[in-house]
Order: sequence, then structure tokens, then C-alpha cells
Amino acid sequence: MKLFGFTRAEVIEVLDGTHPRVGRSVALVIYALICISAVVIALETMPSLTPTMTTVLVTVEIVILTIFIIEYALRLTCSAHPIRYAFSFWGIVDFLAIVPALIFMMPDFATIRAIRLLRLLRLLKLFKANNALDRIARALDAIRAEFAIFFFIAAVALYLASVGIYHFEHQAQPEGFSSIPESLWWAIATFTTVGYGDVYPITVGGRIFTGVIMLIGIGIIAVPAGLVTAALTEAAPTDQILTKETESNRGDEQ
Amino acid sequence: MKLFGFTRAEVIEVLDGTHPRVGRSVALVIYALICISAVVIALETMPSLTPTMTTVLVTVEIVILTIFIIEYALRLTCSAHPIRYAFSFWGIVDFLAIVPALIFMMPDFATIRAIRLLRLLRLLKLFKANNALDRIARALDAIRAEFAIFFFIAAVALYLASVGIYHFEHQAQPEGFSSIPESLWWAIATFTTVGYGDVYPITVGGRIFTGVIMLIGIGIIAVPAGLVTAALTEAAPTDQILTKETESNRGDEQ
Amino acid sequence: MKLFGFTRAEVIEVLDGTHPRVGRSVALVIYALICISAVVIALETMPSLTPTMTTVLVTVEIVILTIFIIEYALRLTCSAHPIRYAFSFWGIVDFLAIVPALIFMMPDFATIRAIRLLRLLRLLKLFKANNALDRIARALDAIRAEFAIFFFIAAVALYLASVGIYHFEHQAQPEGFSSIPESLWWAIATFTTVGYGDVYPITVGGRIFTGVIMLIGIGIIAVPAGLVTAALTEAAPTDQILTKETESNRGDEQ
Amino acid sequence: MKLFGFTRAEVIEVLDGTHPRVGRSVALVIYALICISAVVIALETMPSLTPTMTTVLVTVEIVILTIFIIEYALRLTCSAHPIRYAFSFWGIVDFLAIVPALIFMMPDFATIRAIRLLRLLRLLKLFKANNALDRIARALDAIRAEFAIFFFIAAVALYLASVGIYHFEHQAQPEGFSSIPESLWWAIATFTTVGYGDVYPITVGGRIFTGVIMLIGIGIIAVPAGLVTAALTEAAPTDQILTKETESNRGDEQ
Repeated sequence: MKLFGFTRAEVIEVLDGTHPRVGRSVALVIYALICISAVVIALETMPSLTPTMTTVLVTVEIVILTIFIIEYALRLTCSAHPIRYAFSFWGIVDFLAIVPALIFMMPDFATIRAIRLLRLLRLLKLFKANNALDRIARALDAIRAEFAIFFFIAAVALYLASVGIYHFEHQAQPEGFSSIPESLWWAIATFTTVGYGDVYPITVGGRIFTGVIMLIGIGIIAVPAGLVTAALTEAAPTDQILTKETESNRGDEQ
Repeated sequence: MKLFGFTRAEVIEVLDGTHPRVGRSVALVIYALICISAVVIALETMPSLTPTMTTVLVTVEIVILTIFIIEYALRLTCSAHPIRYAFSFWGIVDFLAIVPALIFMMPDFATIRAIRLLRLLRLLKLFKANNALDRIARALDAIRAEFAIFFFIAAVALYLASVGIYHFEHQAQPEGFSSIPESLWWAIATFTTVGYGDVYPITVGGRIFTGVIMLIGIGIIAVPAGLVTAALTEAAPTDQILTKETESNRGDEQ
Repeated sequence: MKLFGFTRAEVIEVLDGTHPRVGRSVALVIYALICISAVVIALETMPSLTPTMTTVLVTVEIVILTIFIIEYALRLTCSAHPIRYAFSFWGIVDFLAIVPALIFMMPDFATIRAIRLLRLLRLLKLFKANNALDRIARALDAIRAEFAIFFFIAAVALYLASVGIYHFEHQAQPEGFSSIPESLWWAIATFTTVGYGDVYPITVGGRIFTGVIMLIGIGIIAVPAGLVTAALTEAAPTDQILTKETESNRGDEQ
Repeated sequence: MKLFGFTRAEVIEVLDGTHPRVGRSVALVIYALICISAVVIALETMPSLTPTMTTVLVTVEIVILTIFIIEYALRLTCSAHPIRYAFSFWGIVDFLAIVPALIFMMPDFATIRAIRLLRLLRLLKLFKANNALDRIARALDAIRAEFAIFFFIAAVALYLASVGIYHFEHQAQPEGFSSIPESLWWAIATFTTVGYGDVYPITVGGRIFTGVIMLIGIGIIAVPAGLVTAALTEAAPTDQILTKETESNRGDEQ
């Protein structure tokens, strides 16, 4: 049995973008539809939409979902091991991505719609066998342990900062610093230097404490940046340097 | 035909700052005029200007535009290939920069004035054959692919942060988080740690979500900084080190 | 005398997580209790607690404190040198951590409760002999002197920024910039790029001054990040590279 | 003629902290007085001072000024070349630092007081021949050219951001974005991620423009951090590595 002149194995290749003749074109269209789907989900939440625009968005949504359903059906029927695919990671992602189609029959399930976002995971495939991503991933992988420790230290620092500011500011601002968990909100906004300005210390003690916290915070935030940089420095070009050195050393041996 | 005692080829050299006798003086004056022009454009928008100051600024503008027109005319007439110059990148930039002269004849075209800003591009020439800029450019060029991936990941992270905060805060703050695109504004101000404080989460769920987002955000922001640093570390002095190594190795071979 | 089938020396091993058979399980339970204790201290400050939740939290507190008292008693009685333990650093920490038990007898001593936080120090033991922490610690240790100088320069910069902004803004905003120490609060929030937005310059001079300060501030903040990164780059993998070099050089000698 | 048993040359040594017997003690006292003087200047501006505290501060000020006058007199009379000292950089700094003494005779000259801050420059001497400062200074010196270019690019980026946001927001917020120079204030607070929140875009176009600016801003801010880091990485330990390599290479020669 052939589909549009392709064997079943070739259909999967076309969908995956690995078919020698068709190439990545079909796969890229699917990736583009995933992105458009994400934009449509975002736009649908806008309160200022005119009925016409809503109709357009819903139509686009139905079209994309139909294509996703066709893709899922093709993958399921053309796969050499349909059941293995259905229960594989990508198979479940693909299935969950078409579940929201149900809302057109049962409008109560509006929240299901967001499940489609799982399809964004698919975009990761775009970067399969990409050197640059590989380098970043290798660098981040190399500092996994350091990052875990950093997050632990940061968590303890955030906790202690919350306890400290609570004791300084609770009396003066019972609203903003009503409890230690509430103070944690201030602590994280300050440590990350976001500083929304919705809560901030007003007592002398609280401000001095905050000043010290900020200076320490800059030091703490410098650590992950430093770790990433150090790892990236080592990740890629060390091999090149070592190769060059080996070559020059080989010259010595002659 | 000579102009002020210069041959036509020499006129271009004087304007470019490569003339052996005149040197960079004329070119630097033109660069200075470009900067003054930019400052004048900025000052003209100030609402508190007195009529005298407006007159001064308009006069300066007319003088600079006249000089730019003269320069363009000189380049066009003295160039070995006037038409090639007129349609070259810098030729078009130079032409667009003098278009705003029209507004003194037709005052309706006030917005054309901003086209003059294109001349700022000219300032790039100041750094032609500059080692330091070269190093930065080489470093940034080396991490082009990594930057593209970083921006893609950052875009997906921003999108998911917007979707998440919308679900947490939409009910509590229908104004600030009215839709996902609106939430994107919050997401980008938070991720970049700018934190204007015009919108911020107030629900417990939204704050916990934001806290996690901020900590992840610091990690994500650390990546471009790390990439730039790693690239800069490799860009310039690697050559020096390799040279030194080659020298010391050469010593071994003797 | 045996406790639950353990010799006295083994009891200490079990508590420390170094016992060959029991392993880290008991020690990890104690670490978990320390964390839960910290969370309970935070939750107790919430004003919206129902009486039932308060009862639950107080019960959890009493249970944890009882376990801590039992642990302290065990350590004291099973230690080979009880007095040496009692006056050691960890002995004092363990003792202070159970002092808050007194508040259940004397409710006036509510502030004593926070002393329990000292127990958080215990968590440091979790990372004993951890390579990643070791690397970070070694890196930070290597730049101790540079950090001291950085903090000195930062302190002088903060002071001068405060003096400067005070002179620019004092007249226009006698509230926000009432004195130089008050201006210091603005200076530190600006230098660290937190920018709460509770005080900011409004005069032209003050804004130009602030702009310069901010650009310098970015340069100053880049220094500790750079120091940490440089130190981390050198801390760990240099040894590996040197090892590899030594190996390849050894090959040359043959 | 001897002073307290010291020759004239020795008096200078004592003041400079290079005397073999007295050591740095006198010099450190002078440095401490400079710091105290800075703190007093700050405290004097506090509006909540009681008359007693004002008296104490003024007394401290008079005492410190007296000591500075004595030090200046000693340096002038004991110096081998009094006139050369008087017109040297440090001589002028020392002289200007005691000028504020005049205000106790002429109370109108209150602003002269701030001149004393020049004395803070003296603190730089504390770090003379300090390895860590030397390393930082060498690193920053190595990237002088890159920093100049970075500041030029940052200035152009700030200018263009101001022009852009002015066109987007001027209509909607004629107060906050009244002119391009006014918009520059917003641009610098946003680029440096301080984000006070006193002015921010509210139009859709302005927010999209700001989002792009922020992402570019993070890239631009990453450059100086990267430059500092790269320079610090090269500044100190390269010598060590080269030394080690030379040693291992020397081994090869045997």
C-alpha cells in the first residue's frame, strides 16, 4: 500500500524530515504549525478581539488540529511498531497535542486547550545534532553538581534574608512583610535584582540589612554566570587546543 | 581640474581621511558634525526651548546639512565611478542623510528629519582596522550559532512564562494580565531583571511561579554572558599563547 | 551498654551517617527535620493561620524539638569525650538549637525560637567531601584578596555616589534625599541594578549624574563576576589539562 | 633639629608608613581619620540630629582638621624639597583637604567642606604594591581599547533607543517621554536593567520596541562583563602556566 506514492517507511521519513528527496520541507511546515499554534493560543486570550478575528483564530486552530490529527494517524498507521510509537515519549506528546480537538465538541473543556503547548517540546527536534546546542548542553551538563549546590546555597540565603527582613520590617510594614513566606517574595525579587518596587524596606535597620544582602547577592549571582562561562570555555575549544598541542608535540618527536 | 589645489582622487582621500598630507582632520570634522547633528535632532524635541534656542538649532541644522550636501556633491563629482558610488551602500546612506534638507522647503515633511540618523552608520568607519573592535567582532561572530539558539530558548521560555503567569494572575488582575501577549510584557521585564514594577504578581501561586521563573531566568541570562566571555577569551590572546608555545617548542627542536 | 543493639561508638556513627550498615538514612532524617523545622518557623509567622493549623505546626515543632533533644542527649552520653563535644562548635550549635524548647514552659521567650535557625548550619555537613562545593570554595578562596579590594572600591564608589546625588537632588526632593546616609540607600539600590523605584533623581543634573553612575556601576559589577569566573576556570580543569600535558610530554621523553 | 626624637627624613617616613621601627601605625591612623572624616561629612547632613550630636560631630571635625593641618605642616617643613611637595599631586590634595578649616572662621563657605573628600584619594596609597589590585588594574588596562569601543557602541545604542521610544511613546505619554533627552533617562535605566519604574512604555509598539531593546541590552551588557573576565583570566595565572610549561619543556631537553 502506498500513500501519495510513498511507502509506509518513507511517510515516516517525510514527517521526520529525513527523506532523501523531500528533505526537511514537510517537517519544517509541521514545526511552523506548532509555532503558529502557540501564537494562536496567545492571541485567543486577548479581550479586545472582534468576532471576525475570533472566527479567523478558531478556523486556524481547527485547521492546525486537523493537520496534527492526520499526522498522528499517519505516524500510527505507517510506523513499523504502531504500539511502541503510541506509548513512546513523542507518541504521547503527539497524542496529548490533539486531545484539545475535543473542546470543539465539548466546549466546557476549554482548559484542555493548553495541553497543546506540549507540542512545543517537538521544537527541540529542530536542534538535533546541532553543534552549538551540543556545546551549550555539554557545558551545562558539566556543571550540574555545581548548579545544584548553588541553588541549595541560594535557597538558604533567600530563607535567611526573609527571616532577617521580617524581623526588621514586620513592625513598620505589617502589610508588605506580614510573614516570613511573604518576605520571601521580597527576598527573591531583590536577590535576582529584579526589584519590582512593590515592597521595600523603610526602616534604617532594614535598609542596612538589605544593602548587605544586595552586595552578597551580587556575589552569589556571579557564581552561576561564572560556572556557565567556565564550562563554556572548556566545552568546545579545549579539544582544538589539545589537538594543536598534540600536533606540535608530534613535531618534537621527529 | 583642481579643487583647492587637490586632484579629484585626492579630494576623496581627504574626505575619507586617508590623504598623506591632510590626514584625518577633514574626516574627523565630518564625524564630529554627524555627532552634533544627532545631538541637535535630540535637542529639537525638547518642549521647553525658547525661540532663540530654536533658531540656533535650526541654523546649526542648516549649516550641517549644507556641508553634507557639499560633501555628497564632491564625492559624486570627484569619484572615479560616480554611478557606482551613488548606488553603493555608503552612497545611498549619504544621499538619504541629505534628503531631510527638503523640509526647509516643505515643512510638512518633519518626520523625514529622522532619516539623517542613518548617517550615524558612518561612525562605524571610525573603527575601520581597529584591533579592539576586531577582537569583539570576531568573538561575537564565533558564537553566532550559540546566540541564535539562546534567543530561541529565551523566546520559548518567555512564551511559557507568559502562559503560566496568565493562568495564575488573570483572575486576580484582569487589567495587568489581560491576555497572554500582555503577560509577555511582564515576562520580558522580569526575565531581563529590569522589573519596572508596573505589573507584578499578587497571588500566592503567581509569586511562587515568578520566583521559579526568576531563578531560571538568572541561569538563562548567564548563558549569553558566558558565551561572550568564552569567545573573548579565545578571540585574542590564544594566538599569542600559541605563538609563545610554538617558540618554546622550536627551542626544543634544536 | 548497648542502645537498640548498637555500641556507643556506633550510635555516633549512625547519627553522623557514617555507620557501615545503617548508612546515611538516620542522618538524612535529621537533615530533613532541620529543613522542616525551618519551614515551620516560617509558616508560624503567617497571620492567616487557622487555630487547627497553628496546633499542627506547634505539634510538629514539639516533635522535632523532642527528637533534637534526644539526639543531643545521645551524642552527649555516647561520645567518647562528652565534655569536648559539649564545647565543640557543633556541640554548641546543637545545644542552642534545643534551647527554644524552653518557650513551651515560659511563653514569654518567643524570640528565642529563632535560635533554632542555627541548626541550618548543620546542613553544611551534607556537602562534606563534595567535589563541586570544593571547586567553588577553592575558586572563591583564590580571589579573597581581589574581593576585599573590590568591596573597598565599591564602598568608596557608593559613598561618592551618595555625596554626589545628595548635592544634586537634596533641594528638589528633601524627603527622598534628606541626607547622605539616606542617599546611600538610593546608591546601593542603583549600583546593584535592583532599582526599587522608591527614590530616583528628578533633576536634570541628578539624572545625568545617575546615568554616569549606572554605566560605571555596570563596569564595577562586572569585576566580581569576572573574578569568580576566572577563578572557576582555573580551579578545576587546569589540573586535568596539566595532567594531559604531562602525559603527552612523557611520551616525548621516550 | 629633631621632632619627638625623629630626624626630618624620618618624620616623612613615619607619616608614609615606611619607617622601619614605627611601621605603618601612624599612616594607618591617618587613613582611619580620613574614613572617619568621610563618615562625619555624611552624618552632618542628617536633618534629625540633636544639638548634642551636632556638637560632637563638629568637635570631631575640628580635631581631624587640626591633625590634617599638623600633618601638612610637618610634611612641608620636613620634606627635603618643600616647594616640590607643595606643588606635587599629593601636596595639592593635602592642601585642599585642610582648606575647609576656613569655614569655622567664615561660616558662609559651607560648600567648601566637601573638598575634604579629595582626601579619599589618599586611601589609594593603602593598596600600593598590592598584588590583587595590581592584577585587577593590569586586567582593566589590557582592555582599555575594548572598553572605549564598548562605551561608544553603548552610547549609540542608548541614543537610538531614546529616539525610537520617543516616537512610540511621545503621543501616549507627553509627560514621561516629553523629548529625546528625556527619553534618554528611560533608555539608560532600562539598558542597565535598573528599571526604577518611574517611566515605562504603555503603547503596544513601545512595549515591543522595549522588549527588543532589553534583549539586545543584555547582549551589550554581557560584553564588558566578558571583557573583564577574559582579561582577568589572562592577567595573573597565565604566567604561572607558562612557567610550568617552560619547566616541563625544560625536562624534555635533557
